[in-house]
Amino acid sequence: MQSTFEGSPNPTATALLGASQRQVRNRAEPDLPPHVIVIFGARGDLAGRKLFPGLYRLASAGWLPAEYAVIGTGRRAPGSDDEFRSSVRRAVAEFVHDVDEDVLERLVERVSFVSSSAEDGTDLALAVREAEAALGSDVQRLLYLAVPPTAMQPVVGMLGRTGLADRARLVVEKPFGLDLASSRELDHVLKTVVSEDQVFRIDHFIGKEAVQNILALRFANRLFEVAWDRHSIASVQIDVPETLGLEGRAAFYEGTGCLRDMISTHLCQLLGFVASDRPAELDASGLTGAKVSAFASLRAFDPARTIYGQYAGYRDEHGVDPSSSVETFVALEAWIDNERWRGVPFYLRTGKSLAEGRRSVTLRYRQPDHEVFAGEPFPHELLLELTDDPVVSVKLRGKRPGPDLTVAPVTLTLDFADDFPHDEPLEAYERLLLDVMHGDQLLFSHSDEVDLLWRACQPLLDHPPPIQPYAPGSWGPQAALDLPAGGWRLGQS
Amino acid sequence: MQSTFEGSPNPTATALLGASQRQVRNRAEPDLPPHVIVIFGARGDLAGRKLFPGLYRLASAGWLPAEYAVIGTGRRAPGSDDEFRSSVRRAVAEFVHDVDEDVLERLVERVSFVSSSAEDGTDLALAVREAEAALGSDVQRLLYLAVPPTAMQPVVGMLGRTGLADRARLVVEKPFGLDLASSRELDHVLKTVVSEDQVFRIDHFIGKEAVQNILALRFANRLFEVAWDRHSIASVQIDVPETLGLEGRAAFYEGTGCLRDMISTHLCQLLGFVASDRPAELDASGLTGAKVSAFASLRAFDPARTIYGQYAGYRDEHGVDPSSSVETFVALEAWIDNERWRGVPFYLRTGKSLAEGRRSVTLRYRQPDHEVFAGEPFPHELLLELTDDPVVSVKLRGKRPGPDLTVAPVTLTLDFADDFPHDEPLEAYERLLLDVMHGDQLLFSHSDEVDLLWRACQPLLDHPPPIQPYAPGSWGPQAALDLPAGGWRLGQS
Repeated sequence: MQSTFEGSPNPTATALLGASQRQVRNRAEPDLPPHVIVIFGARGDLAGRKLFPGLYRLASAGWLPAEYAVIGTGRRAPGSDDEFRSSVRRAVAEFVHDVDEDVLERLVERVSFVSSSAEDGTDLALAVREAEAALGSDVQRLLYLAVPPTAMQPVVGMLGRTGLADRARLVVEKPFGLDLASSRELDHVLKTVVSEDQVFRIDHFIGKEAVQNILALRFANRLFEVAWDRHSIASVQIDVPETLGLEGRAAFYEGTGCLRDMISTHLCQLLGFVASDRPAELDASGLTGAKVSAFASLRAFDPARTIYGQYAGYRDEHGVDPSSSVETFVALEAWIDNERWRGVPFYLRTGKSLAEGRRSVTLRYRQPDHEVFAGEPFPHELLLELTDDPVVSVKLRGKRPGPDLTVAPVTLTLDFADDFPHDEPLEAYERLLLDVMHGDQLLFSHSDEVDLLWRACQPLLDHPPPIQPYAPGSWGPQAALDLPAGGWRLGQS
Repeated sequence: MQSTFEGSPNPTATALLGASQRQVRNRAEPDLPPHVIVIFGARGDLAGRKLFPGLYRLASAGWLPAEYAVIGTGRRAPGSDDEFRSSVRRAVAEFVHDVDEDVLERLVERVSFVSSSAEDGTDLALAVREAEAALGSDVQRLLYLAVPPTAMQPVVGMLGRTGLADRARLVVEKPFGLDLASSRELDHVLKTVVSEDQVFRIDHFIGKEAVQNILALRFANRLFEVAWDRHSIASVQIDVPETLGLEGRAAFYEGTGCLRDMISTHLCQLLGFVASDRPAELDASGLTGAKVSAFASLRAFDPARTIYGQYAGYRDEHGVDPSSSVETFVALEAWIDNERWRGVPFYLRTGKSLAEGRRSVTLRYRQPDHEVFAGEPFPHELLLELTDDPVVSVKLRGKRPGPDLTVAPVTLTLDFADDFPHDEPLEAYERLLLDVMHGDQLLFSHSDEVDLLWRACQPLLDHPPPIQPYAPGSWGPQAALDLPAGGWRLGQS
């Protein structure tokens, strides 16, 4: 087997040598210190649907530390540790296929529950210290704050007062504030008790294999890399339509809305993965630096180029204000005013009760400057479907078979499930929990990113565009369909 | 349906408008003048295998002129026109599936045979003029010279003396001479009776859909175009191994050899399609100009970087000199010393009795200058399989599913038969005959190209490298396997 694939002369041989000597992030053979994992909101929805199933999957794969304890906490205590353990068993059974009972029991027997509140963390602090003492020295403390936005600051204050924040890694769920001011206030509170390298702002979209694959496609493949700028790309679409409606989350959604819930976090983070320059190194500091640079060049969103929608029937949902003006749909045009992207519009779209559920990123290549083939233009684009089995396809123009020398659309496709039949993708929370235990912030949001993204969103919060109604099962208001010059890739008639 | 796929600002809108207004080469609704088609060597192998089947296919598709006559000619007359027509019927039946008898009869009834020789073309000239008179005015004369190399110059002389060359389009089969001197001599003779725009030097490799698709992929797709130079491409392989041996063609092959038979024509023309710059227009003058430019920068082949092979058993073949030093295999390294390709090696390989029959072009992309992913490098390449159902694939690096952020090989594939289930590709001779009737020289070789390619080959003719034996069914001599720095894509163990 040849070890080089360059022709001679080979200007990159040295770089390659450097690469092969670089440390691989090895998660499969962890050498992790003992952990005490504290889950705030342990009886809540996220813990049951994602965190305990994620911990189970990690245990099943053998990726948890050899020694660990899990302490659930919250205001509402269960009747007993046993009752809590039963609820963990039920959650794992509901959300994981083919549960190995032995693995589950070994996890559950390390689980306990201790009540705490923002006012009083004494018992919890005592329990954590006891658990750490029992596990020996060099125990890592992991605090997962799955608490409502309103509880975030008070709980963080308690963590500081009780000393629980010392040496801890703090996992923080979005929303990271509700606007630029409250985000800065939250960040200030966080920074009084921990330093930035202890904070893991989690965005489960970014935990998806398919999102990380954007990094691989861009930075490991010359073909895509050289055509990843304004000279080659005409426009970018980041499109995350959802079919689901409110699903009983009126209390949360009425105070949040689509912009905060989806755009300022998930879609803007995807934008960062697509738009950032090449990081010097693919580590947290390198990637954060590259994303911060891109976000610093992100022009504040323009209310005149943003469409807010609300699906018909939203105001009738249980718990929704009958005159609610909360947006359930956002489509907007974004611009990144830097050397790479100047003049290239980014279109972001997401909303509830839409026609399809998709998570797709589309880069539309420019047509050749001088067209030598006759005929109408048609899309030439890279499409990334960010599903759990990611699909990558490239729409090209190929010679149409037959007597004329004309071109017609053809598609190159890549199905990861075909290429990697034996490699199991990690579920997002599973991967992100593992990264936290390894102290790797690569896939987490830095406070500087959060700050810059709120800055971009703030004009829409200050001057929200008018809400336009749309029919459930549609693609949103007509004005949103008309937003991109060349139309949307999805849902355009 | 949207008519533009550019974002705004749209710098190419004007170019696109220009393109859609450009005349499409429309072969499907021909408005062709009446034709008299004269086939020299009409009782030979090529006429039976390719030319009459090609004419039948064109007749079947309705692409022949409304009025035409086909006159077969040669030294050896058949017993009668009827006997000749029967041989045409047999040839078509043998080489075409699902023959429509009505179409075949309408073709055959326009076929006749007239004897001629290099010394005496009087009867032929008379027959052609009679046929033209019968077809009306503005009749196009097409002379297909399917004659042995030794007969070429004498026949061309006869065409001049008899006036048959006047207004005619002359289709010339390779070899276009046997070296630089004889090629120039043949060209001189041709130019005394016709002008360059009357000469159609045919290379059936170039008539393949898949070869024309190289133009479409390159010049209609920004993604490939911007990564098509020395900054992105590490090396190129043009690899045409054949499994067949001599197939009874000793007399021809002993006087020709692999370099003349394959490299100086087919493989070098493929090189031209891959290496040329973007033509100003995709017409004969534009493409010829671009290929001539590339060939003018083609460094003369270096005998020290060329491997000649001869398969074991060749000297025992019927008709072969028992001490023959004719090469049945050539592998060589070529360089194009221009701005686009300086420093990028092109590896050409072809030969008889090899392990596989393939026609493939591989462009190997450079590894990133600075590697941010850990692990060994592996191929990142564009592969063009120039079969009748062309396949295009791109080997990439994608994120390996699982806990580590590492990359692994993945493949994007495109199968034209899937994308165009209803578009029938044209057989090479069918397409090229049609192009001749339309007077389109795009896919034919200009005398300047032929001259430059002989110039590149001449050092190997003057100082042939030593012949190295190889086993039938192998990949040629070991020295050839070692030629490319990164190994061959095909057949490398």
